Amino acid sequence: MRTSKYLLYTIKEIPNNTHIISHQLMLRSGLIRKLASGLYIWLPNGLRVIKNIKKIIHHEMKKCHAIEMYFPTMQPDILWCQSNRIQEYGKELIKIYDRHNNRFILSPTNEEIMTDFIKKEIKSYKKLPIIIYQIQTKFRDEIRPRSGIMRSREFIMKDAYSFHASKKSLEQTYIKIHKTYKKIFQKMCLKFYSVQADSGVIGGKCSHEFQALSKNGEDKIIISNTSVKKYIYTKQQFNHNAIIKNCIEIGHTFQIGKKYSKIINARIQNIKGKQKFVHLGCYGIGITRLISAIIEQHHDNKGIIWPKHIAPFQVLIIPINFSVCNKIKEISEKLYKQFKQNNIQILLEDRNERIGTKFYDANLIGIPNIIIINNNTIKFHTIEYQTRKKIYNTKIIHINDIIQYIINKYKK
Amino acid sequence: MRTSKYLLYTIKEIPNNTHIISHQLMLRSGLIRKLASGLYIWLPNGLRVIKNIKKIIHHEMKKCHAIEMYFPTMQPDILWCQSNRIQEYGKELIKIYDRHNNRFILSPTNEEIMTDFIKKEIKSYKKLPIIIYQIQTKFRDEIRPRSGIMRSREFIMKDAYSFHASKKSLEQTYIKIHKTYKKIFQKMCLKFYSVQADSGVIGGKCSHEFQALSKNGEDKIIISNTSVKKYIYTKQQFNHNAIIKNCIEIGHTFQIGKKYSKIINARIQNIKGKQKFVHLGCYGIGITRLISAIIEQHHDNKGIIWPKHIAPFQVLIIPINFSVCNKIKEISEKLYKQFKQNNIQILLEDRNERIGTKFYDANLIGIPNIIIINNNTIKFHTIEYQTRKKIYNTKIIHINDIIQYIINKYKK
Repeated sequence: MRTSKYLLYTIKEIPNNTHIISHQLMLRSGLIRKLASGLYIWLPNGLRVIKNIKKIIHHEMKKCHAIEMYFPTMQPDILWCQSNRIQEYGKELIKIYDRHNNRFILSPTNEEIMTDFIKKEIKSYKKLPIIIYQIQTKFRDEIRPRSGIMRSREFIMKDAYSFHASKKSLEQTYIKIHKTYKKIFQKMCLKFYSVQADSGVIGGKCSHEFQALSKNGEDKIIISNTSVKKYIYTKQQFNHNAIIKNCIEIGHTFQIGKKYSKIINARIQNIKGKQKFVHLGCYGIGITRLISAIIEQHHDNKGIIWPKHIAPFQVLIIPINFSVCNKIKEISEKLYKQFKQNNIQILLEDRNERIGTKFYDANLIGIPNIIIINNNTIKFHTIEYQTRKKIYNTKIIHINDIIQYIINKYKK
Repeated sequence: MRTSKYLLYTIKEIPNNTHIISHQLMLRSGLIRKLASGLYIWLPNGLRVIKNIKKIIHHEMKKCHAIEMYFPTMQPDILWCQSNRIQEYGKELIKIYDRHNNRFILSPTNEEIMTDFIKKEIKSYKKLPIIIYQIQTKFRDEIRPRSGIMRSREFIMKDAYSFHASKKSLEQTYIKIHKTYKKIFQKMCLKFYSVQADSGVIGGKCSHEFQALSKNGEDKIIISNTSVKKYIYTKQQFNHNAIIKNCIEIGHTFQIGKKYSKIINARIQNIKGKQKFVHLGCYGIGITRLISAIIEQHHDNKGIIWPKHIAPFQVLIIPINFSVCNKIKEISEKLYKQFKQNNIQILLEDRNERIGTKFYDANLIGIPNIIIINNNTIKFHTIEYQTRKKIYNTKIIHINDIIQYIINKYKK
């Protein structure tokens, strides 16, 4: 992609009514724009980040044999009345009345229809265990949307559900998905803790939250020598050597058990031919919120520093005097083409802007690898290379070697 | 993927209350399940088909330099009141009231917020023309949802918008996207016509519909020696040599012009430094509905016959006596692995089912290339190959050649 043909809308000033760094940087670096309270437009770079996160999640979920499906967002209220969650969720649950005055909900989670689906399609323990997941836009009527996409009214989630003939099978899959989640968040270079948690309106006895460290997070955890726990002000006693840290909840897993299968009467035949309630596990990742968490952990005073698998582009080429120097232009275009041929996500800074603006934007948007092409070095057939993380640490690399150099970085 | 680990839920009988073949085959071959009137669950094979269609659309849209973004589905009513479309759309437009009793709509189309976005972000003609598109779940409160996903309440659309400094520029881009649409539908092996159409509530003077031929379509076109036109019963005179055909609308393009930029006051500076209203083009493709149209055109009395770029898998391996014959199992597993290594989307029929059921399902689900592995041929190091289109036309191919044979089929 070329910046001249791209919607790279950066902002110099800190936008009004933004209080946390991730929100500010998402607006300033042109990832999002506010449409209304809790509702955001995703600009091209923002969407590319979402897609990279989805790719990591798909890859890891498929490795643990999860099967992708897609359930409607708009759901009749009947199953939600049966489970009484239409009451329990209260005003956060968005309701719709159709032209015949039938009530529907916009689903924030899918335990009911998933269990109902399994009830209708699976009759025997032989087809279990099974893990079903989807990535979907979800809705929640937040009482006070805030912190940009951290707490918004429309957001993207990965929700997964596992079904089992026994408690033991549920526990085994739960551990497997727990490991998958760790891999997913590690690949995003997040510092996080998995902590035991309350199951809330989802239900079940065993539950874990994945909490990414961030001083702007709304959750708190207590870290002591012996354990890491969720900090709930009114309930907890703790050792005075423990420290409390703010966190952002990025994932949540639940061993729900038989709560929904009992409500919906979802039974399967067990090995002895008896009808038994199916066991349910439920596993969520807040995809859009993850982006806030990643930026909270990966930025400096100049802008975002994207982890390599999340960045909207892998490499940014900044030519000096692109529009006036033919030699610079020729080399830049040639490299741009070669990177594309090698399937490297490449952004060429070919705008008619001052060089100061180009470097300012480069720091703000945070592409991890930066190649500077200027007259001083090209006469020796070399380019200047720097990472966004260490912008003052410039390497001189031969033009013929730079593609392979980048490819090797992504092999590691 | 292995059928034993997959959600391949086929149905033998024609489901109740289904009147058209595409709806019946989508249910029977396990692409969708009905959740409620006009609301469908997408099973894994259905989702794979959606993804293949998206891939073709992304590929062609990017070739004409369209930039992907993502706009919220839930939108404040303010711009829709300004354009008066909140009235014009009537009951089809789904409204939501939040906890503060503010009204929102679930967007079926995005001319208002797109124009508003351009107004805020683009100031000069130098940044135009630009094409922005997104693929998104959309909602419509159909008075009578019917024909499965052909007329549903939640569906997936590609909507694109082009912005221009002049009418001429709009016309040029319109022609370019018109060509792109033709390529997209041709790649899906659809028989279709592009016909001049009425702009309806979208607006503008020049508009074309893309109509796929199908006897179960709800639209009609008149084909004569000299032209193809939309048939609107009350309005039209036509030559008696003309024939009328039923069609499904799969795409719609509009040269809207300045309607929305005037409403929203979206101006840009022209080359002479004057503030001028921006010109808008709008281009939609009904992604989920396309699947109905493809099935309407590609089936026989046994099931679906997927076009090669749309099929949920490229190749199906059916081993005879998989569970009892070690040699069969070994060869099947080896081929399965080799196909995967070559990035061919492969489905291995390893269920513990009667062979009759396996062939019945193979015909129903319509994977285009079928490989049969049995004792009669493997002793000569060969397999039986057939296409779903000509299942009685079996070729004998050497085991070592089959992978390359399939790869070559996809190169063409």
